[in-house]
Amino acid sequence: MQQGKQSIRFERTPRILEAASVVGEKEGQGPLAAEFDEIENDPMFGTENWEAAESALQKRAAERVLEKAGVVRTQVRYLFAGDLLGQLIATSFGTVDLEIPVLGLYGACSTMGEAMGLAASFIDSENADYTLALASSHFASAEKQFRFPLEYGNQRPYSATWTVTGCGAVVLGKQGGIAKITGMTPGKIVDMGYKDSMNMGAAMAPAAADTILRNFQDFERRPEDYDQVITGDLGTIGTEIMINFLRNKGYDIAGRHMDCGIAIFDADRQDTHAGGSGCGCSAVTFCAHILPKIRAGQWKRVLFVPTGALLSSTSFNEGNSIPGIAHGVVVEAVK
Amino acid sequence: MQQGKQSIRFERTPRILEAASVVGEKEGQGPLAAEFDEIENDPMFGTENWEAAESALQKRAAERVLEKAGVVRTQVRYLFAGDLLGQLIATSFGTVDLEIPVLGLYGACSTMGEAMGLAASFIDSENADYTLALASSHFASAEKQFRFPLEYGNQRPYSATWTVTGCGAVVLGKQGGIAKITGMTPGKIVDMGYKDSMNMGAAMAPAAADTILRNFQDFERRPEDYDQVITGDLGTIGTEIMINFLRNKGYDIAGRHMDCGIAIFDADRQDTHAGGSGCGCSAVTFCAHILPKIRAGQWKRVLFVPTGALLSSTSFNEGNSIPGIAHGVVVEAVK
Repeated sequence: MQQGKQSIRFERTPRILEAASVVGEKEGQGPLAAEFDEIENDPMFGTENWEAAESALQKRAAERVLEKAGVVRTQVRYLFAGDLLGQLIATSFGTVDLEIPVLGLYGACSTMGEAMGLAASFIDSENADYTLALASSHFASAEKQFRFPLEYGNQRPYSATWTVTGCGAVVLGKQGGIAKITGMTPGKIVDMGYKDSMNMGAAMAPAAADTILRNFQDFERRPEDYDQVITGDLGTIGTEIMINFLRNKGYDIAGRHMDCGIAIFDADRQDTHAGGSGCGCSAVTFCAHILPKIRAGQWKRVLFVPTGALLSSTSFNEGNSIPGIAHGVVVEAVK
Repeated sequence: MQQGKQSIRFERTPRILEAASVVGEKEGQGPLAAEFDEIENDPMFGTENWEAAESALQKRAAERVLEKAGVVRTQVRYLFAGDLLGQLIATSFGTVDLEIPVLGLYGACSTMGEAMGLAASFIDSENADYTLALASSHFASAEKQFRFPLEYGNQRPYSATWTVTGCGAVVLGKQGGIAKITGMTPGKIVDMGYKDSMNMGAAMAPAAADTILRNFQDFERRPEDYDQVITGDLGTIGTEIMINFLRNKGYDIAGRHMDCGIAIFDADRQDTHAGGSGCGCSAVTFCAHILPKIRAGQWKRVLFVPTGALLSSTSFNEGNSIPGIAHGVVVEAVK
C-alpha cells in the first residue's frame, strides 16, 4: 500500500495467462481485423434480440479465453464483469452458465479497467488462484439503450463515437502467463459540467487526464517510463483535450499515446466519426492488439486507462451533465 | 485463501468503524424508526426529480458516516458503491462531490454485500487504510425504473415487495471500530427459470440458499455457529422457500434467521405485502438494526446475505427469467 495515494502496487504481480476477443462484423472489417480471435458476422449472434446477442458475445469470449488458457471454469474463483446495459443484463444472462461467483461492475466504458484491476487485486492478495475479467458492448443494444431506434436512422455529428460490438476477456493467475499486472489506479468521478452526449470524448477527457496524472505521481513516473499510455475511447476530440490537459501539468504523452477508439476503426473508410466506444472497445483492443505487443516484448510497460462517460438516458433527459471516470491498470512484459 | 472454495477468510479482520442510515418517511414510520440516523419526510430530498433525490440520499449517508467515524473524505482510499438505477446514476451523481476513487458495483439488491466484501478485502490486503461502502434505493426511482408510473396506482399482489427509500453506509478501517468483517462469500448467479417480477423473493431464494450453503461448507460451520443468518429482501414468501431448501440440505436456520425486508416494515399496518426490498433495504437495516446488536455483544457472529434479483424492464419485457444472486459477509463482535 502507498499511504495517501490513489494507486496500488501489486507486489506479487498477478499474471495475465491468456486473453480472448470476440467482435462483430464492422470491427472485423477494421484495422485490427487480423488480430481478433473471433469475428461474428451475424449481429444477433444467433439469438432473438440485441441484449441476448450481447450475452452470447460474453459467453463466447469467456469460453474462448478459458480454452486458450487451459483453465476450466471450476478453477476460476471469481468473475469480475460488466456491460453498459441497465441492470447489467448482458452480464447476468451471459455469464450465468459459467457458474463462477460474479462481482458485477459498472464503470461505463471504463469497466474493463475496473474488472482487470479488481481481478488482479484478488490474485495479489492470494484470495484467488485464478480470476476472470471481462467487459462487453454491442452497437445495437447500446443504441437502443442510450440513443435512437436504428430504424430512425439519426444523423451522427462528427464528434460522436460508434459503439463497438465486442467482448474482451482475460484470465489471471499467479505465475507464468503472457504479461503481468503490476499496479492499478482506480479513478475518481470528474464532472466538468459537460452535457453533449454526442461528444463523450470531451466529457471523459478530464477524468482520463486525472487518472493518468495520479498514476504518474503515485508511482513517481514520467511519460517515458511507459512505452504507451493507452486510453479507452476518448476518440479524436477527447484525445486532444486530454493531451493538452496533461501538457499543462508538465507531462507530454503525445509521442507515446494511443486511444483504443481511434485504433479499432478506420474512421474515414468506416464512417465511425470520432472513433469507437463502449466497454468492448478498450477490452477487445487490449486483448487483440495491445497484449500481443507486450507478450512479444515490443512494449515493456504500458498504462491502460479505459474511460467511461457516466450517463443514462434518464439523467441526460433530465438535463444532467455527463461525469467521466477512468480506471488505470499498469501492464508489463513478463521478462 | 481457501483452495477450491467460494469464500475468503479475512486474516487481518477489517473493522467497521461506523455506520450510518438515512431513510424516507415510510421507513421512519416502521418498526426500526428509532434506530435510523436520519429520517427525511420530503421524498424529493429537496431536489427536482426522483433520481436526484436518491443521489441526495447517498450523499447525506456518506457525509453522516464519515462524520460519525471521525474520518475525513481525503483519508478514504476507495469507495465501493451502487444502486438499482440504469448506469448507476444515483451513485455517479451522489458521490461525485466526495472526490474519492470509486468502484461502481451492480448486484441488484445484493449490492451492499458486494460493496462491504470488496471494501473489506482492500483493508485485509493492506491496500487501503480506510474504505467506504454504501448502497441505496428509492421507492419512486425504482417504481419509475422497473414498474409503473406512480400516478397509475397499480394494484400490487401480496407477493410483491416495497422498495425501501434509504441508503446505508459503512466506513472500514484496520483497527478499533464497532465490529469486524471476518469473511466473505461472493455469490453465483442462480437462474431457476422463475419469471414473476411481482414475486422476486421466490426468484432470489435459490441464490440466497446457495450462498448460505457455500458459506457453511467453506468455513465448516453449522447454523448454530451464527447468532443470526440475515437475508436481504426475500420477504415472507422467499424466506419460506430458502429455509425449506436449506432444510433439505441438512441445515435448519429457522430459529436464527431474520430477513431485512420483513424487519423493516410492519406489513399489515404499512401495506407493504411481502416485505421491503431494494439495495437500501438490507443496507439500512444492517447499519441501523443489526450492527448495534453486534456492537453491544448481543450477537457475536452473523452471516449477512443481501439478495438480488437480476432483471431489467427490458429483459422482463423480452420474456426472460429473473436470475438471483446473493453475496454473503461474515460480521463478528470485536470483543
